[in-house]
Amino acid sequence: MATTALQELIDSLPPGAVIVDADVLDSYARDRTDVLAAGAPLAAVTARSTDDVAAALAWAHANDVPVVTRGAGSGLSGGATATPGCLILSLAKMNRILAIEPDDFVARVEAGVINGDLDRAAAAHGLMYAPDPSSMDISSVGGNIATNAGGLRCVKYGVTRNSVRSLTVVLADGRVLRTGHDTVKGVSGLDMVGLFCGSEGTLGVITEATVALVPRPGGDPVTLLAPFPTADAALGAVSAAMRLGADPELMEFMDRRTLQAIDDWKGTDFASAGGMVLAQVMGPDAAGRAEKIAQAFHAGGADDVAVSDNAAEGEQLIAIRRMAYPAKERLGHLLTEDVCVPRSQLAHMMRFIDDLAAERGLAICTVAHAGDGNLHPVFIYDGATPTDVPDEIWEAAGDVFREALRVGGTLTGEHGVGTLKRRFLAEELGDVGVEVQRAVKRALDPKGLLNPGKALA
Amino acid sequence: MATTALQELIDSLPPGAVIVDADVLDSYARDRTDVLAAGAPLAAVTARSTDDVAAALAWAHANDVPVVTRGAGSGLSGGATATPGCLILSLAKMNRILAIEPDDFVARVEAGVINGDLDRAAAAHGLMYAPDPSSMDISSVGGNIATNAGGLRCVKYGVTRNSVRSLTVVLADGRVLRTGHDTVKGVSGLDMVGLFCGSEGTLGVITEATVALVPRPGGDPVTLLAPFPTADAALGAVSAAMRLGADPELMEFMDRRTLQAIDDWKGTDFASAGGMVLAQVMGPDAAGRAEKIAQAFHAGGADDVAVSDNAAEGEQLIAIRRMAYPAKERLGHLLTEDVCVPRSQLAHMMRFIDDLAAERGLAICTVAHAGDGNLHPVFIYDGATPTDVPDEIWEAAGDVFREALRVGGTLTGEHGVGTLKRRFLAEELGDVGVEVQRAVKRALDPKGLLNPGKALA
Repeated sequence: MATTALQELIDSLPPGAVIVDADVLDSYARDRTDVLAAGAPLAAVTARSTDDVAAALAWAHANDVPVVTRGAGSGLSGGATATPGCLILSLAKMNRILAIEPDDFVARVEAGVINGDLDRAAAAHGLMYAPDPSSMDISSVGGNIATNAGGLRCVKYGVTRNSVRSLTVVLADGRVLRTGHDTVKGVSGLDMVGLFCGSEGTLGVITEATVALVPRPGGDPVTLLAPFPTADAALGAVSAAMRLGADPELMEFMDRRTLQAIDDWKGTDFASAGGMVLAQVMGPDAAGRAEKIAQAFHAGGADDVAVSDNAAEGEQLIAIRRMAYPAKERLGHLLTEDVCVPRSQLAHMMRFIDDLAAERGLAICTVAHAGDGNLHPVFIYDGATPTDVPDEIWEAAGDVFREALRVGGTLTGEHGVGTLKRRFLAEELGDVGVEVQRAVKRALDPKGLLNPGKALA
Repeated sequence: MATTALQELIDSLPPGAVIVDADVLDSYARDRTDVLAAGAPLAAVTARSTDDVAAALAWAHANDVPVVTRGAGSGLSGGATATPGCLILSLAKMNRILAIEPDDFVARVEAGVINGDLDRAAAAHGLMYAPDPSSMDISSVGGNIATNAGGLRCVKYGVTRNSVRSLTVVLADGRVLRTGHDTVKGVSGLDMVGLFCGSEGTLGVITEATVALVPRPGGDPVTLLAPFPTADAALGAVSAAMRLGADPELMEFMDRRTLQAIDDWKGTDFASAGGMVLAQVMGPDAAGRAEKIAQAFHAGGADDVAVSDNAAEGEQLIAIRRMAYPAKERLGHLLTEDVCVPRSQLAHMMRFIDDLAAERGLAICTVAHAGDGNLHPVFIYDGATPTDVPDEIWEAAGDVFREALRVGGTLTGEHGVGTLKRRFLAEELGDVGVEVQRAVKRALDPKGLLNPGKALA
């Protein structure tokens, strides 16, 4: 890269927007996927407007520089890991909530707005931004759209895509596209919004979004915590509870090894159970619906179902689920995986993971967004740094991916393909699937400059 | 077209699958958009399998023959109107429900299955297929996916896209693509399912789908019917009711002229109101939620809100809404339009339509899926045949489209662009939008043989 070319980029953007200092650049080179090493970026741009993004992309296009876009850098699949010589494009400073329209149940935001901030702003109008990844207080709306992220409330409200109405996207060559419908319904033209949702920075850069809000459920939530003798029993009870139509907001599972990790940390005695389910119900007749779920849990083998009497008690029950991840972090480095299967296959997948752990002597603790069939097996390993992932861990993770595919599931329910799963993607998509996706990629990014080497690499 | 080429098509398909008789062909040449004249097709194929569709498309691709795909032919925008010399591809006989998986809340169906049939099959498992276009007993699942159709229950369950998990699609050259995720969540690869949903036969031919089912709400629905002094008051009350979070399944509006048409037919006295709203609530605490809506209607100016005490009474109230369309059919030929606006703009749009009707002496009766901001102004006109649409009707419809766009709405909420609205589409998409959609179209159908002249023509 000639210095004159880089100077052109600097000149085309506001003062201070381009970072070239190597130490500062390093802090932009990776997301939270700490199992991956990053390449050295050429430079980083901290955009403050769609115009900034357009200028940066036009420059990259003219100079054939690959571009890695990042929101808040909270990704877990290496989607924002820097590749050598890339231009990092950070949207973290595009963090303004531009409008909330309470009668139309929409908000218009810049891509860098933090999910939790948007949800709190919506709450002031009696509304809610439904997408709630566990990272919601550190992850951005734009990043979550670019990965079509999930979350705990998905079991009721669906994935991020369901909350996105329209987008402003800067294309690979710097053109600015406004696409989608601000309205509830709209079928004019092809659904480009869906295409950009979950495209992991490979088709364009999302700079603004109009997202849907929903009425915030009233009243206290009712929370249930149920220990089961076995994981099989717990996951069978989840299926039975889901068939009741009780419309829970949460339906979470923790396996025995996760409970053991919490016990080891907190001195509790959860791991006498073979698995535990946490559920929550909000809104009309929450108590009545929670009671139906409690009955299904009893019938499924839970002798002692705790049901919260008030919000504070509910928070105490949820706090147990929140301990799952920090309890594991104490034990070593973590490779957090993410497969999704038909709900009826959850129990099979847990047996498969248990057998794998036993046969190979691996430490795998699993939590699941069980109502959605979304499993997070967390592989724990030792090593000088998190990037020292032992081969047997990668092999075991690969076996879990393939088993998920074999039973009708997918490689990734909510974290994305990123860098970590790109070598498995073709197995899921099939030959024609890969051909079609590559054709669409070429149509939108003919030079292949947007997040190269990620997702459909 | 050489006879030998057509003979190749006949030889590549099961006996009787290819129709060349002109009279029979004519019955395949149009959908329910009776305002449009159709061209004469070259031939029609009645497919019974994905293989049949693949053979037909491979032949069309090799011989440069345009292909117009049809499901049940219930479309209202001319999406399935034959173009001269095209091959009609009918999926009406691919009407098998292949599987219902009650634990996973999914069904696997061929594209020609009638929506109502699928919903009834799901009901046997305590489940529901949520998409419910008014045409649900005559329209097909595949056709509704290809138009991303709406329906009355959208206000609660969202559009058809939200119910589609994975698709089998035959591409323009005959390759067979399996795409999407059968699971609740899945973010591996680009969202091709969304791209095919609503693509109106221009990107590929959907032959099978895995669709989501939902638990069927229990208990009796509670139905409300509220006459308001003015349309403004009615639509204001709709907004107020939506903000309660009472989660209605229906929230429908009828304008005074629609009520007058019913009165003229049935001798009722509805048109003493300036507008009427029909709402329905199902599931947990339906009575309590209905009461909240009734209070909002009272507060909004409805003196006399009818609330059903039982299912039969609810049906009587809904029957009034069902009269809206047949009451208009008595008055002349109908051009049924379909725009969607932010809900806060509904009252403005009704005033605009009222003024247009008054200024130009036109008969326009409007119903709306008001909870979604989706208006159906129905233009009534005289003429020897439905295709004799007077110029002033097209002009008025165009003015309604442009006003909807001006206030942040869209040309079509649920019917699709088809033939009727293609000349307006570029106004909504903008230059970059058109370029991007054309690039995607070229990537998937480089010869431009799939439904040419429709949608993004």
